[in-house]
Amino acid sequence: MAVYTDVSAEELTAFLADYDVGELLAYKGIAEGVENSNFLVHTSRGNFILTLYEKRVAAADVPFFLALMEHLAGRGITCPQPVKNRAGAMLGTIAGRPAAIVTFLDGLWIRRPGPMHCAAVGEALAKLHRAGADFTLRRANALSVEGWRPLYAGAADRANRVQPGLCDLIERELSLFEQDWPRTLPQGVIHADLFPDNVFFLGTELSGLIDFYFACTDTLAYDVAICLNAWCFEPDHAYNVTKGRALLSSYARTRALSPAEWDALPLLARGAAMRFLLTRLVDWLNVPPGALVRPKDPHEYFRKLRFHQAVGSVRDYGVDAAVPA
Amino acid sequence: MAVYTDVSAEELTAFLADYDVGELLAYKGIAEGVENSNFLVHTSRGNFILTLYEKRVAAADVPFFLALMEHLAGRGITCPQPVKNRAGAMLGTIAGRPAAIVTFLDGLWIRRPGPMHCAAVGEALAKLHRAGADFTLRRANALSVEGWRPLYAGAADRANRVQPGLCDLIERELSLFEQDWPRTLPQGVIHADLFPDNVFFLGTELSGLIDFYFACTDTLAYDVAICLNAWCFEPDHAYNVTKGRALLSSYARTRALSPAEWDALPLLARGAAMRFLLTRLVDWLNVPPGALVRPKDPHEYFRKLRFHQAVGSVRDYGVDAAVPA
Repeated sequence: MAVYTDVSAEELTAFLADYDVGELLAYKGIAEGVENSNFLVHTSRGNFILTLYEKRVAAADVPFFLALMEHLAGRGITCPQPVKNRAGAMLGTIAGRPAAIVTFLDGLWIRRPGPMHCAAVGEALAKLHRAGADFTLRRANALSVEGWRPLYAGAADRANRVQPGLCDLIERELSLFEQDWPRTLPQGVIHADLFPDNVFFLGTELSGLIDFYFACTDTLAYDVAICLNAWCFEPDHAYNVTKGRALLSSYARTRALSPAEWDALPLLARGAAMRFLLTRLVDWLNVPPGALVRPKDPHEYFRKLRFHQAVGSVRDYGVDAAVPA
Repeated sequence: MAVYTDVSAEELTAFLADYDVGELLAYKGIAEGVENSNFLVHTSRGNFILTLYEKRVAAADVPFFLALMEHLAGRGITCPQPVKNRAGAMLGTIAGRPAAIVTFLDGLWIRRPGPMHCAAVGEALAKLHRAGADFTLRRANALSVEGWRPLYAGAADRANRVQPGLCDLIERELSLFEQDWPRTLPQGVIHADLFPDNVFFLGTELSGLIDFYFACTDTLAYDVAICLNAWCFEPDHAYNVTKGRALLSSYARTRALSPAEWDALPLLARGAAMRFLLTRLVDWLNVPPGALVRPKDPHEYFRKLRFHQAVGSVRDYGVDAAVPA
């Protein structure tokens, strides 16, 4: 939640001269995103978002993200749409950083989603997966099972401080995932971070999806498993079967899941819980003293991981795989 | 540069139901202001700013600030205008904080102002002083000469670490100000913080003034002295006589300064440099380790103070008091 790079009015005016976005009227740094610097830019044509890609986002990946947003927007997914400059490029440079202008999406994110919101996100995710089917660029998921052990290495010596016994639990789980992770399920473009703050609603309608900066090529059902973790647990970390049923059945109505995908869902959901447990653990243990960005509590995903460990089949998530809708 | 208080879509929707500002479409926390939390709010009527007043701004002062903005806007000063709710109140409550909605001002602030900008700000300041003449509320300036010694007490033991000899310098200056500070010059509403980031331009036109949260009742010429410090020095801290002449003569054309005000200007400018030296010194010495908000360097105002110490008369600022225009 910060703006890492200052942009002067003079620099922004010069940058926008290459774009057909109207006259610059105002801009404000916005307290959003932990990876990039974002500015809301108001012009005579309306609102836009200017994103400066900071070091944590590999510059080599930015063209993938921008091309994906353009591809999805062209197929009816409401997401930020990169604005091309007069030379036809989506990526420019400002203040020494790679930067892009994207359209501003109206909408509000829901702090306490209900089953209706879960159904809407299930449908939107399935539409995203279908719309991404003919996207030709590829990007490996650095935060999938092969990435977890190197990630964990940065926290292994202190993990038991966070939760007694956490080291043993993680070691056992990593071995399990490395052995049993499903590798032959349908793959494609996944969002990989479709948490409530990345899904906008206007009234009861889902109005758009944002933040494609974890998007990659991976198992589609793993994206469903991430959403199950992100949307279907209560603030006390209890699984809500009504929300789970709403999300999964809504997804399956728009993109059918194969029997193999349904069968793999408990392990994928368990893995998704591990992925967020690990990144939160590393952030939690490496926060600079006095920092204004407060890391998220890893315990939440420890609790979710324990839940998925006890799941026998997708029935425990609220759906009958034989009759998913 | 932060958002201190989170506001949910549900809270904001409920809050806005009391206002006639259209339908809420989107909102973003903005990385601006060190005293309050600010959100850019986009509705079907356009853009607005929502400000939550945090602890550092005394809740008792907020009605003064809001009434002042309304008063000035009603007299042709382009500044944020508080929006009244259906009950006619400008101040509401959200997330447990006093809060207000104000109109959004287009405009850009200039990082490297030239003489033309200095002339524009001089004229705008004089218009503000004239527009405030019939404003009936009063607010004492906690950061005027009586406040400097208590403020300095929080830094006195460590001031020499910042600059050898700084303690002696400040002590001598404080004694001088306490004895000679002019107390009979014309008073009224002053902005008290009219730095470049609080003045918007669109093209070459000054388009608005913002951030009235230091505004108070004090010596009008002291506000001129603050602007002289804020606008008329180069990045290397050298005084620019062309900018000073532009600012002062432009001010004087719109609101004539009396001979006593011209005579007092060097001491007022020296005091204004002390005021910003002291607040920066205190912030510099009390920054929490690892904080993301980087305090501003107090040396800049030490250098400016030394300049004003050497000033003999307003001629050194670039104007002839006898023929100010």
